[in-house]
Amino acid sequence: MQKLEFTLSAGPVEVTAATLAGLAKPIQYHYDDDFKATFRRVQEKTAEILQTRNDVLILQGEAILGLEGALKSLVTPGMKVLNLVQGIFGKGTGYWLRDFGAEVHELEVGYDDAVTPEMVEEFLDAHPSIEMVCLVASETPSGTVTDVSRIGPMCRDRGILTYVDTVSGVLGMEHRTDDWGLDLCVTGPQKCLGGAPGLSLISVSQRAWDKIYSNPAAPRDSYLSLLDWKEKWLGDGRFPYTPSVSDINGLEAALDQALAEGIDQVIQRHVDARELTKAGARAMGLEFWARREESMSACVTSIRLPDDIDNAEVRDLARSKYGVMFSHGQGAGNLIRLSHMGSTAGGFHSIVGLTALGRTLLDLGMKLDLGMKLDVGAGVDAALEVLSEQRGRQRSAADALV
Amino acid sequence: MQKLEFTLSAGPVEVTAATLAGLAKPIQYHYDDDFKATFRRVQEKTAEILQTRNDVLILQGEAILGLEGALKSLVTPGMKVLNLVQGIFGKGTGYWLRDFGAEVHELEVGYDDAVTPEMVEEFLDAHPSIEMVCLVASETPSGTVTDVSRIGPMCRDRGILTYVDTVSGVLGMEHRTDDWGLDLCVTGPQKCLGGAPGLSLISVSQRAWDKIYSNPAAPRDSYLSLLDWKEKWLGDGRFPYTPSVSDINGLEAALDQALAEGIDQVIQRHVDARELTKAGARAMGLEFWARREESMSACVTSIRLPDDIDNAEVRDLARSKYGVMFSHGQGAGNLIRLSHMGSTAGGFHSIVGLTALGRTLLDLGMKLDLGMKLDVGAGVDAALEVLSEQRGRQRSAADALV
Amino acid sequence: MQKLEFTLSAGPVEVTAATLAGLAKPIQYHYDDDFKATFRRVQEKTAEILQTRNDVLILQGEAILGLEGALKSLVTPGMKVLNLVQGIFGKGTGYWLRDFGAEVHELEVGYDDAVTPEMVEEFLDAHPSIEMVCLVASETPSGTVTDVSRIGPMCRDRGILTYVDTVSGVLGMEHRTDDWGLDLCVTGPQKCLGGAPGLSLISVSQRAWDKIYSNPAAPRDSYLSLLDWKEKWLGDGRFPYTPSVSDINGLEAALDQALAEGIDQVIQRHVDARELTKAGARAMGLEFWARREESMSACVTSIRLPDDIDNAEVRDLARSKYGVMFSHGQGAGNLIRLSHMGSTAGGFHSIVGLTALGRTLLDLGMKLDLGMKLDVGAGVDAALEVLSEQRGRQRSAADALV
Amino acid sequence: MQKLEFTLSAGPVEVTAATLAGLAKPIQYHYDDDFKATFRRVQEKTAEILQTRNDVLILQGEAILGLEGALKSLVTPGMKVLNLVQGIFGKGTGYWLRDFGAEVHELEVGYDDAVTPEMVEEFLDAHPSIEMVCLVASETPSGTVTDVSRIGPMCRDRGILTYVDTVSGVLGMEHRTDDWGLDLCVTGPQKCLGGAPGLSLISVSQRAWDKIYSNPAAPRDSYLSLLDWKEKWLGDGRFPYTPSVSDINGLEAALDQALAEGIDQVIQRHVDARELTKAGARAMGLEFWARREESMSACVTSIRLPDDIDNAEVRDLARSKYGVMFSHGQGAGNLIRLSHMGSTAGGFHSIVGLTALGRTLLDLGMKLDLGMKLDVGAGVDAALEVLSEQRGRQRSAADALV
Repeated sequence: MQKLEFTLSAGPVEVTAATLAGLAKPIQYHYDDDFKATFRRVQEKTAEILQTRNDVLILQGEAILGLEGALKSLVTPGMKVLNLVQGIFGKGTGYWLRDFGAEVHELEVGYDDAVTPEMVEEFLDAHPSIEMVCLVASETPSGTVTDVSRIGPMCRDRGILTYVDTVSGVLGMEHRTDDWGLDLCVTGPQKCLGGAPGLSLISVSQRAWDKIYSNPAAPRDSYLSLLDWKEKWLGDGRFPYTPSVSDINGLEAALDQALAEGIDQVIQRHVDARELTKAGARAMGLEFWARREESMSACVTSIRLPDDIDNAEVRDLARSKYGVMFSHGQGAGNLIRLSHMGSTAGGFHSIVGLTALGRTLLDLGMKLDLGMKLDVGAGVDAALEVLSEQRGRQRSAADALV
Repeated sequence: MQKLEFTLSAGPVEVTAATLAGLAKPIQYHYDDDFKATFRRVQEKTAEILQTRNDVLILQGEAILGLEGALKSLVTPGMKVLNLVQGIFGKGTGYWLRDFGAEVHELEVGYDDAVTPEMVEEFLDAHPSIEMVCLVASETPSGTVTDVSRIGPMCRDRGILTYVDTVSGVLGMEHRTDDWGLDLCVTGPQKCLGGAPGLSLISVSQRAWDKIYSNPAAPRDSYLSLLDWKEKWLGDGRFPYTPSVSDINGLEAALDQALAEGIDQVIQRHVDARELTKAGARAMGLEFWARREESMSACVTSIRLPDDIDNAEVRDLARSKYGVMFSHGQGAGNLIRLSHMGSTAGGFHSIVGLTALGRTLLDLGMKLDLGMKLDVGAGVDAALEVLSEQRGRQRSAADALV
Repeated sequence: MQKLEFTLSAGPVEVTAATLAGLAKPIQYHYDDDFKATFRRVQEKTAEILQTRNDVLILQGEAILGLEGALKSLVTPGMKVLNLVQGIFGKGTGYWLRDFGAEVHELEVGYDDAVTPEMVEEFLDAHPSIEMVCLVASETPSGTVTDVSRIGPMCRDRGILTYVDTVSGVLGMEHRTDDWGLDLCVTGPQKCLGGAPGLSLISVSQRAWDKIYSNPAAPRDSYLSLLDWKEKWLGDGRFPYTPSVSDINGLEAALDQALAEGIDQVIQRHVDARELTKAGARAMGLEFWARREESMSACVTSIRLPDDIDNAEVRDLARSKYGVMFSHGQGAGNLIRLSHMGSTAGGFHSIVGLTALGRTLLDLGMKLDLGMKLDVGAGVDAALEVLSEQRGRQRSAADALV
Repeated sequence: MQKLEFTLSAGPVEVTAATLAGLAKPIQYHYDDDFKATFRRVQEKTAEILQTRNDVLILQGEAILGLEGALKSLVTPGMKVLNLVQGIFGKGTGYWLRDFGAEVHELEVGYDDAVTPEMVEEFLDAHPSIEMVCLVASETPSGTVTDVSRIGPMCRDRGILTYVDTVSGVLGMEHRTDDWGLDLCVTGPQKCLGGAPGLSLISVSQRAWDKIYSNPAAPRDSYLSLLDWKEKWLGDGRFPYTPSVSDINGLEAALDQALAEGIDQVIQRHVDARELTKAGARAMGLEFWARREESMSACVTSIRLPDDIDNAEVRDLARSKYGVMFSHGQGAGNLIRLSHMGSTAGGFHSIVGLTALGRTLLDLGMKLDLGMKLDVGAGVDAALEVLSEQRGRQRSAADALV
């Protein structure tokens, strides 16, 4: 197998040397006042990127821990929940909801499509007893997004709780916890923040806490518990269990870099990367997975493969022959993902992605409609055209500031 | 507050530069074949220190995750369980057992004492229907151990399952999963292995799997699930969720160092550190927390404080004035812990611990019985005497090999 | 200025995380036996890549220190020296030779050309009193090489000393100190080895030592001295001055990676990178700096710019607008260098280089002859074609081994 | 050999994790504007600890490079120089001075003694033609200091140049380049600054530059040259040769830590460490090497050994049996050095040093006068008494600020 040259996967992503240096800081005892101060500082910085004044919890476990613990804390038997399904993670939320005893309603579309605010509005009008809406802001496996900016306020105004899986959403798209009235949000460091996997970053509104406190089944004295963190750590300054010191230090390093760059700038960098990747892929002759362009996420561009080319084959060849690691769709469909996330959301990482994918497809003999060959060169030219324009615009803007 | 000069806490401990370098390795995508090979290699090395051919699971969460998940997987309603309680963690096991519906029997002694194999034997003779015995091999908060080497085989021979919390036991005392017939063992990297916190290392015997498979309440599709790891990862090569790449790399670095040193040598290093610490503390005029010397753990020496000196005060002064971080008993009693664990289980780290603790107690005006003052100098002399003898013996042994 | 995304400069180059981890190892006292053993081990590994059994010295200073110290040690007043000049470093050698009192003869060609073995042979035939030949194996600033494999043995057979500056030659082209009878070779870690700058790696033959010992002006008790290292360190185990512990550790890490990959494999990797870069640049419509293709180095591809485009302008725009760092010719001419050296000698780093350079030139309005525009896409297609073939060949070879 | 537990050598010293992280930063091309800015910033921070507005040069080579290059730049044939000799480095300066053609006058005392300002004044009164005074502020091998604060101004007022080797002086004792009128100062990162070895940090006054410019023998186009750095780098922004990127990054990390702590605080920390070490050693029954207590340096405490115990034997036993690395006197005499330098200038590192040295001497059967045994315990008690008082004073001072 060829030595790894580039990791362009959909998270965990390549992280910067500064983030690795954070992970490598000396391990301190978790009850050292220094470390407790670090932990609190990291909470505050996390609140900043979540744009919230709500409580922020940092659980030691990949985001799936936060998602499960939060949902289990919120759901009571018979609770009426609307679950929006447009991908694998949304589908999974539904399974959990049923396990936890909710009365589940679902708005489901194809995994290459998006549930629209209009569909949600219509449903809520017709079902005024809905108590909670669950949604996935950014479905990483298929590279599509849901419009939280409209669905969030819609729920808040109706007194409906919102549970938002935004693991790959934060910093890859606009995310305003408080402005949009989102009650429970879960994200992770290993996506657009460009950190290491291993933590669940959670914001909990007062309304959500009220619901959780009224739920006798909300986990307590458990690794899944949000209440333990609320009462023991936020309340008494005692950790429910030993936190991962290195993960916290690594998270702080990643947060510091993002905040120094600026939240809006980080988001724009992801959007720019998507635009040049889209331009390149289209000019190359590739087809997007997403049915609607406006629902394509900024952190990953999903390419629809023809039926005769298996995505696993593509991924394996790109990795073993070219040393470039892509992600497939984790079951969402026959697609391959060009990721531009965290530190790989720059210009030339996408050029690498486009050329490596393009050449791999050529090697596999991929034909376009009408038998035309993929045109990698044309794709690169188009992507560079977009990049040149983006960077020119940034330089003009920077000059204007002087 | 004085700058931190030494962390002598009871885990997380100071880790070596090589372990930090492991944590700082580039983050790879978890489905990269390279990383999957790394994960499997780390499992094998973990099996080596657990001395087992059973399945080994590495869950991404501090050991408490493994302990909870494993217990929940094993316990069925009405199951007859004997729980050995000689400290805080044993006590906690009992709470969980009751929550999970077991019929709980307990052998409980003071937290400065140990449940003996004789007590267990007598109980099991009298209660032949016991299906599982739960025990904590090393109660870190009070620094006492349980004799697993005798209780384990006793249970195996009677067909009773064993659930062993040996978080600070592995590498700090003899531990033989297979030889002693232990069914479910949980440890973590942040104690005697000298790694970073953040992972649960679990071994599961076939007997334990049989029990778990027969348990409808065993967690599935959950962060707490052992079955998910068994079926998805061990079975199909799919991770139930994204593992913490950096924690796995850090764990491998710590394991490599331990295995290069040799398991017996690492254990002996801990025993030696205890011996010199004990000699020093005794000569200084301090009293041990443990009632029986033979139950003192090799990873931490607990010192009993007089009633008029609060352990929190001692810890705070040592940290804020001298830059030395100790642990208190986390509720086990009015004690302070001199840790010698992982990379701090050497000779002079214990000298630092003894002198920093001694001087802090003098500053607080601690009097010995009969009003004698602590004699720090005498303690150091005694500790150095033991150290000189230990090292002399090692050098003779090494010479003899040539 | 755009954030740095890729460093494609002609050394120092981007180094691997493993090399950075080497640099970050704990600093040991240089007289610790551990460190002395490390130093000796690093000497041996350096000898391996220099393919020699001669003494190896590691001076603490960038290669220019080794070059100066060695030349000053060898040259006696009136010594007849032939200096081969085909670039900036060769030119500089001549200045030093004159300063040190040699009778200097030079064979000089344009900096885009190479002195051939035939020219050297003819000169030596005509000047049998020449005592030493000085040459630069790889002129990094212009990206051209000299054929040491033929000139070396030619000198050895005539009893003429050779002084070889092969700073960017070792691991980027074949280099056989002993087989070719090279007397004094100097290289550095920051080029094809992919290490950090800061050290001079020198091999000295017995013949060279004899010459140095007979030279009363050879530096002693000086930072420039080779004799101090020979007598104090190699002889007595005392360092002439404190070596840079971190640089030695970093060097060992880089050497370990190169030796694990294999010397021939590392060289082939550089050759492959050159071939795909050449194919890409040619198809794009660019002109090479080197007049003869056979003298193009494998570590850097120099592109000749038209007179109306200044290389500084190109480099500045690529860096400030695109975050890609190139090198210019350091005075060798109006050229820009696409480097593929050390860890950047892979496939897709060259794709980044080609596209970033191409697009920058387009932005600057570069026209080809006949007014044709640069065709970046065509360049990428051609480079990928070569890459696909190279990797296919490697895979076939690997398969054949099974 | 026992695994290394503590490095208490007289430089290179153990460095902090933050300094190691600096050394491990990604390698940038030296002509990247980012790196050039870093280099200039590091110069400014170096000027801060040297307390000067003079030019600061950072040469890539251990301090001996700066010392040699600077002296060679300053000395003209027949120049009348007074060299103060109280240790090995002062002695070495004299050898160089003679090599470089100076008319050398020396004031020499035993290596356990110090040349006093009065001796210098008397000499200068009697020899008004002296043009330069050379002195070593802190003779690391013997642990003694010279009073630069009085000798510096004395020379300035007489128009005499000063050449000051203060490699282990800066941050270990007061050092005021400009206030004291010092013309040429050389220091290094690996002593009291707690950095890695590998760089020469030099300040040059205008008067010194004038002298150098008037010296035709001042090195040019040489690794030893100060003029190359003045003209090429400070003048034109071109490096005379590739600087060590990692060393510069490591130096910045060390400087940042020192400046954050405060120059006066760092010095006081060294003074405090000396005081507690002295108190401990004296109470233990050891004898100081230095004849005058006021000339004992704050970075290292030299212990005089009796004739029947060889310092090499002590050092070897401490390292091989106890894993503690000390330095001997590098030829200054039969002494052993307890270092408290950089990050090891804390409280408990000195306790480790005292106990490890004491016990090693006991193992070797060292007798005090009158046959009394060393009293290690008494030494520790005395050292802790001083430490307790120092830290109490600091806490009171800190409280007073609130």
